[in-house]
Amino acid sequence: MLEYLGECAALVEREINRWIPKDIKPEILAKATRHLIEAGGKRLRPCLALTACEAVGGKREDAIETAAALELFHSFTLIHDDIMDHDEFRRNVKTVHVLWGEPIAIIAGDALFAKVFEAAAANASRLKMSSERMVELFNTLSRASFELCQGQVLDMLFEKRDDVTEEEYMQMISGKTGALTEAAAKAGALLGNADERQTQALASYGRLIGIAFQIQDDVLGVWGKQEKFGKPIGSDIREGKRTLMIVRALATASEKDREILLKAFGKSNATNVETREAIEVLKKVGAIDYVAERAHKLVAEAKLKLRVLPESKAKEALLGLADFVVEREF
Amino acid sequence: MLEYLGECAALVEREINRWIPKDIKPEILAKATRHLIEAGGKRLRPCLALTACEAVGGKREDAIETAAALELFHSFTLIHDDIMDHDEFRRNVKTVHVLWGEPIAIIAGDALFAKVFEAAAANASRLKMSSERMVELFNTLSRASFELCQGQVLDMLFEKRDDVTEEEYMQMISGKTGALTEAAAKAGALLGNADERQTQALASYGRLIGIAFQIQDDVLGVWGKQEKFGKPIGSDIREGKRTLMIVRALATASEKDREILLKAFGKSNATNVETREAIEVLKKVGAIDYVAERAHKLVAEAKLKLRVLPESKAKEALLGLADFVVEREF
Repeated sequence: MLEYLGECAALVEREINRWIPKDIKPEILAKATRHLIEAGGKRLRPCLALTACEAVGGKREDAIETAAALELFHSFTLIHDDIMDHDEFRRNVKTVHVLWGEPIAIIAGDALFAKVFEAAAANASRLKMSSERMVELFNTLSRASFELCQGQVLDMLFEKRDDVTEEEYMQMISGKTGALTEAAAKAGALLGNADERQTQALASYGRLIGIAFQIQDDVLGVWGKQEKFGKPIGSDIREGKRTLMIVRALATASEKDREILLKAFGKSNATNVETREAIEVLKKVGAIDYVAERAHKLVAEAKLKLRVLPESKAKEALLGLADFVVEREF
Repeated sequence: MLEYLGECAALVEREINRWIPKDIKPEILAKATRHLIEAGGKRLRPCLALTACEAVGGKREDAIETAAALELFHSFTLIHDDIMDHDEFRRNVKTVHVLWGEPIAIIAGDALFAKVFEAAAANASRLKMSSERMVELFNTLSRASFELCQGQVLDMLFEKRDDVTEEEYMQMISGKTGALTEAAAKAGALLGNADERQTQALASYGRLIGIAFQIQDDVLGVWGKQEKFGKPIGSDIREGKRTLMIVRALATASEKDREILLKAFGKSNATNVETREAIEVLKKVGAIDYVAERAHKLVAEAKLKLRVLPESKAKEALLGLADFVVEREF
């Protein structure tokens, strides 16, 4: 599966360079738009689109412009997120606003977003898509962006609240992460000329693994190895990010454990010892195991959705991708 | 002509409410996305699209979703611009980031941008546009957004430079303002099923009046009445905005006048007297007359482009709109 992912990533790399070439003017815009993309990333969303396209009987290449567009899209959201969260590092490099300032970072995100629709239009045009299907493709992308914004706002509102429920958290990450992975899989299906049933199945699959991905991301945010994951250990805790683990722990921990947790939670100046003790509480009250189980259930559900697809190497890859989402360490 | 503009604005108002309704969730996103739009604005870009559509033989209503999309688009750029420029007022109200903070303002802009493409897709779908024309419509919008980003970056880079030439300034505002007015007129033409020649003529017309509009905006930025224009007098000077007037004055003023100008230029703490003296220099060296003349020439050129259109009320409105751009006081 990782080999298959690697092939997809290689395919999409060239296409990304076509849409945000190094010679964009002014030069600073080229650098700022390309920075995070060049720094790495799993190319999960492009791979989802390419593989979904193949799984419904298309060729991977049929979805290549949109696959690149999805990575630009993702990168746009990361750049703007990093500004909002005041994050200084991502993918082991400094974030765009830290390197070039907030105004350039805002514009770089906007510029990437602009390219999303141009690339998708080029794809639709090359495939001589029917106008109905083209509208569906555009709606898929634009509705996902709007939902993403809604999820992002919820995330911010939750930071100020102590009583966020699990359901609210799930709704938030469904928008923040699930909307775009759904769009990726659905766009791939549309470009592969899938029928309605397959398109719906892939859309649901994409949404579910996106949610599972975010839960795992939150786990790695407190638990992952910095050199693999690219962010300082426990940074999510010090930033006061209301993750499913935190929601669960705050709801189930004893008064004393709660206190230990709150000593580091949302405290940017918490010591390493305080941060580590907070992480120990998450482990002790079973919050980490609990969310890992929820993520695995979502993945199982996602895999079931794929029953409507014929057996193929691409389908195998989608099944493997679902497992990867919760088993990854980066 | 103002009556015609008023009709267009009324038409588009309802449509805007369809795309960013008051019941968007979370509520803060509804408020932040709607704030500047509700505060007023001339609806110039929607009117351009509706009128262009009618001028090539379509009905105004044929372009209504895209007209609304253009106002969302414009509002998105204003919200992000205001963050970057640290502007606190626009249209006589506080800016979005001042009211709700930068993160919400960034997201509100992104959310408006997302809706642009959904509204345009709905328009194309309703008209049963051919897929080729649909691709052209999408390219028009997405390429304009990218060019706008490029213009915005140039604007920022220019703030740090003392040797910006008039040509560079014109290139910058062509991207920052001309790209979107071109897109508005061109989109209207495409939706009205214009032929290639008419589409090109309207695109050029839109670009030219956009550039003229920006030059006049810069004049009003130092010279306009606050109660009409909505921004404090001379704020552009204190902010160090490199406008055509400034470029011209710095290149032609005597050493002494230059000094007076630079006492207020880019000095956020310049006194009212210093600001007024700087404005007097702009007047004295003829910079204000000079740029007014350039704006009028651009408008004359824009009007010439319309020769390819048959006579109609809509064509009259476009001619009037071109004059309005440089004669307005708000």
